Amino acid sequence: MTGLERFSINQMTVKQLSMPELVTACRDLGIGNVGLWRDPVQTYGVEETAKLVRDAGLTVTTLCRGGFFTAVDPDERKAALADNRRAIDEAATLGTEVLVLVSGGLPSGSKDLHGARERIADALTELGPYAEDHGVKLAIEPLHPMYASDRCVVSTLTQALDIAERFPAHQVGVTVDTYHIWWDDQAPAQIARAGASGRIHTFQLADWTTPLPEGVLNGRGQIGDGAIDMREWQTYVEKAGYTGAIEVELFNDALWARDGREVLAETAQRFLTHTAH
Amino acid sequence: MTGLERFSINQMTVKQLSMPELVTACRDLGIGNVGLWRDPVQTYGVEETAKLVRDAGLTVTTLCRGGFFTAVDPDERKAALADNRRAIDEAATLGTEVLVLVSGGLPSGSKDLHGARERIADALTELGPYAEDHGVKLAIEPLHPMYASDRCVVSTLTQALDIAERFPAHQVGVTVDTYHIWWDDQAPAQIARAGASGRIHTFQLADWTTPLPEGVLNGRGQIGDGAIDMREWQTYVEKAGYTGAIEVELFNDALWARDGREVLAETAQRFLTHTAH
Repeated sequence: MTGLERFSINQMTVKQLSMPELVTACRDLGIGNVGLWRDPVQTYGVEETAKLVRDAGLTVTTLCRGGFFTAVDPDERKAALADNRRAIDEAATLGTEVLVLVSGGLPSGSKDLHGARERIADALTELGPYAEDHGVKLAIEPLHPMYASDRCVVSTLTQALDIAERFPAHQVGVTVDTYHIWWDDQAPAQIARAGASGRIHTFQLADWTTPLPEGVLNGRGQIGDGAIDMREWQTYVEKAGYTGAIEVELFNDALWARDGREVLAETAQRFLTHTAH
Repeated sequence: MTGLERFSINQMTVKQLSMPELVTACRDLGIGNVGLWRDPVQTYGVEETAKLVRDAGLTVTTLCRGGFFTAVDPDERKAALADNRRAIDEAATLGTEVLVLVSGGLPSGSKDLHGARERIADALTELGPYAEDHGVKLAIEPLHPMYASDRCVVSTLTQALDIAERFPAHQVGVTVDTYHIWWDDQAPAQIARAGASGRIHTFQLADWTTPLPEGVLNGRGQIGDGAIDMREWQTYVEKAGYTGAIEVELFNDALWARDGREVLAETAQRFLTHTAH
């Protein structure tokens, strides 16, 4: 297929494919970019994955994910920081510039969103310089407010930028993912704000479909199936100066139940249909 | 029980109780306020319900709900406006000052949130004066962003006030419901904004618990079971000048499966434990 120069397939979209199957399928379809996840990378081996994608000529657009910074317990915090340094090391080995951060939810029994958000900033004070030393940029991902208690206390681009702007842009920026922000009429202005300081570190697509499944984790819609105008959001990030890859990241039980190569081809086709390229 | 002067039980919390059962249970427990829903009111009869609650000395704090203003089709819009005038008539008959509005989601196939929000304002231009003539205030309820596509395109207090402020406060204000806004760090300032112009028309409580159930409709947590600090939000509305009833409105399959009188007593007890009164 042509027109896929900026398309990147996030590995989670086709997690039924093994790492070599994913790489082969990308080459067969003319897909040059992938976003990877730490679990499958570690399973295949970090160095081995780096060699596999390098030999195939693929660009790794992001590594997902670091984060989970909201623990109060000192030992848990120390462990989280150590794990995030490993994630930065892995990103550097894979040759990607961007580590996506999912910040973490409320600690058990806590009702203090503000305090949890401040602990994210504390963690980034330690991790920002470490990431810079390794040529990796951290990309805080605001997750949809329905994840605020159990997954990510950063719910809007406004909140993500309020934290990111305490650090240099080459250390900390944001992830713009349509699934999480499409409902927010303040998001277009926040995309402009992020672009003005060079903080749009990755742009991801997923569509909003209902009904949401139990647990609301694995119902992200295939591009074009839902309520989100992808071209509109693409326009916002491009007006803000973003020229990088456009990554499709879907968590979807129905897609995972199908043949991975078929889902990959469909996703690339949807990208061509629903974005400007 | 004492300390329940400001407590109001929203009928939906104990929908397993018939209208007379609800009224009897409220009297037995010393509960003086109820929020009613149109469906059970119509089933029992609007005049009959008005007489029942009046004879029992109960105050009707709200009627739920009008709204669903986002249709594009002219016949659908006309039908929605007519239905909302009936809702206003019913509120007046029941003697409540407040009709809660759930604005409606995206029309089928539409991706235009902005246009849908503008159609809400259009509808209120017609309904505001009609409500005023009947002594009823309309209370736009921002619903959690997870309902933006299929139920309510108004997702934040900011958006709700941007619409409400086009009208006199005695015509159009907002519903402040902890379940929908607890994640939003801009909500406290918006509560102050609403209070300054006399637009907090009702204050409702529900707690945020996870995992969310399929469809995300009937998982609102009993007060105290979840992530929300009820006293914190009560402080915000009271600092903003709100002195009215505090209504507990839970949609919860587990609570509906239990004895309704027992759930009512538990809810009143949770109110006493988790609010200042």
